[in-house]
Amino acid sequence: MTNASPTVYPYRLRIPGPISVPERVRQANAKPVVNHRGAEMRAILGEIQRLIKPLFGTQAPVLTFGSSGTGVMEASLVNVLAPGEKVLALVHGQFGERYAQIARALGAEVDVIESEWGQVPDPQQVAASLDKAQYRAVVTVHNESSTGAVTDLAGIGALLRDRDTLFLVDSISGLAGMELRQDEWGVDIAVTGSQKALMCPPGLGFASVSDKARKVIDRDDRCSRFYFDMRKALAGVDNNETAFTCPVSLLFGLHEALTMIHEEGLPQVFARHKRLSDALRAGCVALGLPAFGDQAAASRTVVVASVPEPLTGGAIVKHMYENYNTVIAGARNKLSGKVIRIGTMGQISEADILTDLHYLERTLTALGHDVPTPGCGVAAAMASLR
Amino acid sequence: MTNASPTVYPYRLRIPGPISVPERVRQANAKPVVNHRGAEMRAILGEIQRLIKPLFGTQAPVLTFGSSGTGVMEASLVNVLAPGEKVLALVHGQFGERYAQIARALGAEVDVIESEWGQVPDPQQVAASLDKAQYRAVVTVHNESSTGAVTDLAGIGALLRDRDTLFLVDSISGLAGMELRQDEWGVDIAVTGSQKALMCPPGLGFASVSDKARKVIDRDDRCSRFYFDMRKALAGVDNNETAFTCPVSLLFGLHEALTMIHEEGLPQVFARHKRLSDALRAGCVALGLPAFGDQAAASRTVVVASVPEPLTGGAIVKHMYENYNTVIAGARNKLSGKVIRIGTMGQISEADILTDLHYLERTLTALGHDVPTPGCGVAAAMASLR
Repeated sequence: MTNASPTVYPYRLRIPGPISVPERVRQANAKPVVNHRGAEMRAILGEIQRLIKPLFGTQAPVLTFGSSGTGVMEASLVNVLAPGEKVLALVHGQFGERYAQIARALGAEVDVIESEWGQVPDPQQVAASLDKAQYRAVVTVHNESSTGAVTDLAGIGALLRDRDTLFLVDSISGLAGMELRQDEWGVDIAVTGSQKALMCPPGLGFASVSDKARKVIDRDDRCSRFYFDMRKALAGVDNNETAFTCPVSLLFGLHEALTMIHEEGLPQVFARHKRLSDALRAGCVALGLPAFGDQAAASRTVVVASVPEPLTGGAIVKHMYENYNTVIAGARNKLSGKVIRIGTMGQISEADILTDLHYLERTLTALGHDVPTPGCGVAAAMASLR
Repeated sequence: MTNASPTVYPYRLRIPGPISVPERVRQANAKPVVNHRGAEMRAILGEIQRLIKPLFGTQAPVLTFGSSGTGVMEASLVNVLAPGEKVLALVHGQFGERYAQIARALGAEVDVIESEWGQVPDPQQVAASLDKAQYRAVVTVHNESSTGAVTDLAGIGALLRDRDTLFLVDSISGLAGMELRQDEWGVDIAVTGSQKALMCPPGLGFASVSDKARKVIDRDDRCSRFYFDMRKALAGVDNNETAFTCPVSLLFGLHEALTMIHEEGLPQVFARHKRLSDALRAGCVALGLPAFGDQAAASRTVVVASVPEPLTGGAIVKHMYENYNTVIAGARNKLSGKVIRIGTMGQISEADILTDLHYLERTLTALGHDVPTPGCGVAAAMASLR
């Protein structure tokens, strides 16, 4: 447990999701529960459809599941696959690996194009693979939060438009923090979760379904499934009903969060995410923690910073938590020790970025790292924000 | 939408789940979100284990999923079945039908013992079936909330103790409102949801797993699965970790609800459910709505009342909602029109029962039903409560 005084150092949740949930959303989560199939709930579900579609960049129905992000990743696959069909997984980090792992668990034959972590999938490589085999689906991660790299979905989607292959995308840590244009980019199923840039507590998963995907989902020869069966979910979506009891309270919160996002304006939300992530990244670089990976593809919802030896990511995370009650992330994968990750999604402000960098400088100094100039991290962020 | 004035007639959620959630629980749901893998969350998950096991009547681990009840029903099956294995489904209502339907969707060969709705499965019939075929699992519903009948789990569990067959039980609308003694009764996996007698919002599913079930779950030849894979969930449960991001806020609420249940005391909670359901049932009978089904097996978490012709359940439900802002349930199955159902679970009191009966009498009268004596429903309930 932390030793930091909660008065001097209030608890700060700064991992790349689940994120700190705004007061307005939390209070909406606390509203009295209503009949999950009554007029009140249908009105909320209808509003959610209307408000969430622009975040997906789609006119397609968006399905709601009580689930984590992993659940809807599985949903995107189990509904379109028959066992033994081929999947092409574009892997450039931990969550791409998970997508491939789920496909294998469901009995798919999975080919992997692995990019160096921190880099993004190369559409040309994808094109070459598509010419060699018949894939039911290409799966990838929009915003690979383990590395901070953003995939060129448009470039890959364009390759699939005139093929039978479906394009399935995990935008769990991207959607609502960065642009997603599902329809324009040719994404067939995009999935996301509530606990990232949608700034809600975890517990809701969403999946948008293109017409092209729907034709496959409706076939009788797909994997066995029940709870995540999109045929059941699609049957009710136009009437604003879910197939099974929906997480009523979490949906109240989501409705509030979506309202806040549209009050600010989508372009403004995206610009704020970019501005703040740029500032935090600049601050980390100034402190001597170089940005990890391909900066041309830098994420706007997470900053991933390299940790120079002999420092370790774990030591920084631990010190930040124990001394400043601030929770940032290391890595639970092959980057373990080598990076730290800080979320820049949801209702965060310049204050959060400066505070992160202030504590980070003190932490690095305490751990024996030679910070170039006192205050250089905060100064670099301020310059970036000017 | 309702026409009732929300000032004169505050919204009352009186269906057999989701139920009205106590203020204390809703405020806990609104607490700031914490790191889903941090010390704070592990402490909560550990406390939840300790507090929830007595409700299952088990020493076995209780797994937590972000899911509706249907999701954990699927989880109980997908983890123990291989496609083509046989399942014996004891069906005495809508949710037993669903259990059978899920098993079929997963590729099981399902034999059904159907009891008349309102009656309960007969252990002798089960014994006869068990002698005729090798079943991987017997599935049934503890509290069939569509009919208000409670299954004799001990009688069936005793038949399975010395067989390889597993006993899977849906206690979604039973647990926390009525006694469940998983270990003593020989239940292998019991599943439940948060939105019934656990008096939380929907969104959490739970499954307890016996040693006998665990041996089957660990086999490599079971159905393909990922999100609901109990091997992954069991791997972390002793460290108070979930396999995937858990619904942090809902778990805060659950912790509060479990605390409230133990403050009142489990025997007291069960006695209150019995006392209030008895009173409501007596009131309905007095109003001319006979109790549905086998009263020796009457539920304590839901009252199911028969609706005499020419009245219909739907008309009563509609009138109660439109005029008294009170949401009760009819039936979404073959009992449609013939019954009404009112929840008697969670933090309800005598006041709720009297109010239900007061509005019900006015509704019945408005619909042309000849109520024996004005006030007879409330009077019967009061007598029952004395």
